[in-house]
Amino acid sequence: MLEELKKKVFEANRLLPKYGLVTFTWGNASGIDRESGLIVIKPSGVEYGKLEPDDMVVVDRNGNKVEGRYSPSSDTPTHVVLYNRFPGLGGIVHTHSSWATSWAQAGRDIPCYGTTHADYIYGEIPCVRNLTRDEIEDAYERNTGVLIADEFEARGKDYLAVPAVLCKNHGVFTWGKDAYEAVRNAVVAEEVARMAARCEMINPGVKPAPQELQDKHYYRKHGADAYYGQAQSEE
Amino acid sequence: MLEELKKKVFEANRLLPKYGLVTFTWGNASGIDRESGLIVIKPSGVEYGKLEPDDMVVVDRNGNKVEGRYSPSSDTPTHVVLYNRFPGLGGIVHTHSSWATSWAQAGRDIPCYGTTHADYIYGEIPCVRNLTRDEIEDAYERNTGVLIADEFEARGKDYLAVPAVLCKNHGVFTWGKDAYEAVRNAVVAEEVARMAARCEMINPGVKPAPQELQDKHYYRKHGADAYYGQAQSEE
Amino acid sequence: MLEELKKKVFEANRLLPKYGLVTFTWGNASGIDRESGLIVIKPSGVEYGKLEPDDMVVVDRNGNKVEGRYSPSSDTPTHVVLYNRFPGLGGIVHTHSSWATSWAQAGRDIPCYGTTHADYIYGEIPCVRNLTRDEIEDAYERNTGVLIADEFEARGKDYLAVPAVLCKNHGVFTWGKDAYEAVRNAVVAEEVARMAARCEMINPGVKPAPQELQDKHYYRKHGADAYYGQAQSEE
Amino acid sequence: MLEELKKKVFEANRLLPKYGLVTFTWGNASGIDRESGLIVIKPSGVEYGKLEPDDMVVVDRNGNKVEGRYSPSSDTPTHVVLYNRFPGLGGIVHTHSSWATSWAQAGRDIPCYGTTHADYIYGEIPCVRNLTRDEIEDAYERNTGVLIADEFEARGKDYLAVPAVLCKNHGVFTWGKDAYEAVRNAVVAEEVARMAARCEMINPGVKPAPQELQDKHYYRKHGADAYYGQAQSEE
Repeated sequence: MLEELKKKVFEANRLLPKYGLVTFTWGNASGIDRESGLIVIKPSGVEYGKLEPDDMVVVDRNGNKVEGRYSPSSDTPTHVVLYNRFPGLGGIVHTHSSWATSWAQAGRDIPCYGTTHADYIYGEIPCVRNLTRDEIEDAYERNTGVLIADEFEARGKDYLAVPAVLCKNHGVFTWGKDAYEAVRNAVVAEEVARMAARCEMINPGVKPAPQELQDKHYYRKHGADAYYGQAQSEE
Repeated sequence: MLEELKKKVFEANRLLPKYGLVTFTWGNASGIDRESGLIVIKPSGVEYGKLEPDDMVVVDRNGNKVEGRYSPSSDTPTHVVLYNRFPGLGGIVHTHSSWATSWAQAGRDIPCYGTTHADYIYGEIPCVRNLTRDEIEDAYERNTGVLIADEFEARGKDYLAVPAVLCKNHGVFTWGKDAYEAVRNAVVAEEVARMAARCEMINPGVKPAPQELQDKHYYRKHGADAYYGQAQSEE
Repeated sequence: MLEELKKKVFEANRLLPKYGLVTFTWGNASGIDRESGLIVIKPSGVEYGKLEPDDMVVVDRNGNKVEGRYSPSSDTPTHVVLYNRFPGLGGIVHTHSSWATSWAQAGRDIPCYGTTHADYIYGEIPCVRNLTRDEIEDAYERNTGVLIADEFEARGKDYLAVPAVLCKNHGVFTWGKDAYEAVRNAVVAEEVARMAARCEMINPGVKPAPQELQDKHYYRKHGADAYYGQAQSEE
Repeated sequence: MLEELKKKVFEANRLLPKYGLVTFTWGNASGIDRESGLIVIKPSGVEYGKLEPDDMVVVDRNGNKVEGRYSPSSDTPTHVVLYNRFPGLGGIVHTHSSWATSWAQAGRDIPCYGTTHADYIYGEIPCVRNLTRDEIEDAYERNTGVLIADEFEARGKDYLAVPAVLCKNHGVFTWGKDAYEAVRNAVVAEEVARMAARCEMINPGVKPAPQELQDKHYYRKHGADAYYGQAQSEE
């Protein structure tokens, strides 16, 4: 069942430690088959080095397991909500990568200080509030997804243009057209978080990059007039 | 004698440089055989690359050498006291890992700023005071253990829920059900120390994570209602 | 065509990830054949691991493609302007390396705080202003080159003695007598940026190195009286 | 001539990039044969990867070359003065390692904040002043050595107990009973510099470790009553 997607999601999970984004089992990648609505995700708490493609777990759009010898990641309900609320997503990644998580712990949006950020993410990376005690007790992981989607709506953010979010005191979720792109955006979010913290250290009064520069870089790589990369592929 | 434990403690010691926690010989791991009360520990000042399982030293619960061609780690009396005072421990690790030691030098507890911390450690990582001149002259390494255990008692901390402690101006001790878990907690303490320092840099007014979030993450992985990971293993 | 130069530029591009200066495709190196005026540069958006010498693109001094199956780097017009305005250059490198880019995002020149800097770069590394909205809309990449060259003129800086520049909210350009030297200067700029940020953290009131020390180190390695290295090579 | 010493100094030089202490050719190690008074040192500006034991240069106690196809390191006069003024030294290392150099650029002594420092270095690592313009013009490298030795005398510091010094706006020198120990102390100085900067970031009001703790750790490893390590070797 979904062998190709399992392989892809497996490989995306293996990229997380390769890029230095996860320690132990602190992260997970998933992908969705939009036709069937089935989601493939990492099993919970299994070490990356011991994973095989067949260990990936298949769940449906309600988060119920459809196939797999393992239990799915405990963060599965968050992934499920995001796939349901953001219909353009093909892959999602969650990590506790060090700099992005430091911003999440600090409870701050990451401002767009430069073109490395603007090349991939339009405007600041939002940091959503803590869940309330009731939201935690009711359904912690599901409500994490609901909070993210609600916050994007409330701020009028296009989730395709802002493929990353911080969860306060927790970590980072990123996404993309597939699991690989979600991994790439996790790398971008970590690097952007690192440079934003350092640039505030170097100049405490620093301001975000001018809007016209942000626009230039974002639209140079995205949309109808993009001219970065080779014609056959945007990247 | 205790061949299996020696192999485990040997391997735990070798993990310390692998995880980037030690430079040269600045660290040691030990394990205890609770049945006999015998403790297996790294020899003092021998390089990790030159260690063999048979080089591990066996000492009794008074710290006297029972077997081994080498002298045991100079920190052995600290390990001995901790095993005696904390009867649930199976393994202990001591390192000068860079970020945790920077907090120890700063003389501050590490607040719980997020779920990476709360997943493994319940509440702040305490930093114990300096020993007095008399305590140092009397029995420095033994009194280090006494101070840690007394401090846990005085603060009402459950050592199983708080498997890490900083010693002011010195370094970090971690522990667990065996030497491997003690190593894992040493990795956690280092990463948590790194992210806590950076998150204070990013937001100098940052507050610890809400108590309900700390509870959620700690109890999602520990205790009767834990649901993280696979049923057969908590991790 | 220009097989040797292509090989050199290819190798210089491969050095960028090797030295930790680029993530994904965030950087490019080029070289010029001064006799023909032809420039060899990395193709746009192609991963470093997949590059072959024959993938390098040849453009003329107006930036028009002369040979190559790929489109040239989107930063090509910046390289072209710099080669035209700085006739002593043989190679140029552009990266978003982490510390140099943090300074660029902070919008500050990097002061010369020590001899590591003075050994290669005479005086501060300038950070040029943002382009205006009109300059961006007109010809963003070309105007980036124009701005750099104008700023060097306005500040009276010798581009051979100051082989590095920061572009505000963007990244860093370095150059040299060939593509290899441009890579070397990219490594220098990154290390100098790292140490300058840390030294300001350690001593917020720090002053640049005394002029006589800067002179000593720069002229010990450059010019007629240089005595660093072996007689047959300046390095 | 001095084949064994050449091999040792060669190996010590190769350890510098291995421990991450040098970029390109920014560092050098030397050793002295006290019987003949001859010093073996790295050639100037030759890459570490291309060095062979036979490339090491032999100079006498006045710094004149006695043997070798290459010119000796441009820092040779500093090494020569230190060997002459500190008769107990067997090896010297100079680097621009990143954290130690950041302190040198900041122009501050590195306080002893903990036992990692106290285990190897007694009290703060001194940072000597800049040379005057006259001292630079007269004999820059030689006067660097004179300044270091004079500063140790003026502060009443025992060079065997304080095997490291920072040169303002420049870098770090370390030493020991041979070239290997000088390398080890260069690693210690870099790690101590890193943790001191971070601990000041975590607690801006931090004080040095209590004197009795510094004494305990230093004398636990050094002198007649040392008990760290195995009897047959202090390390």
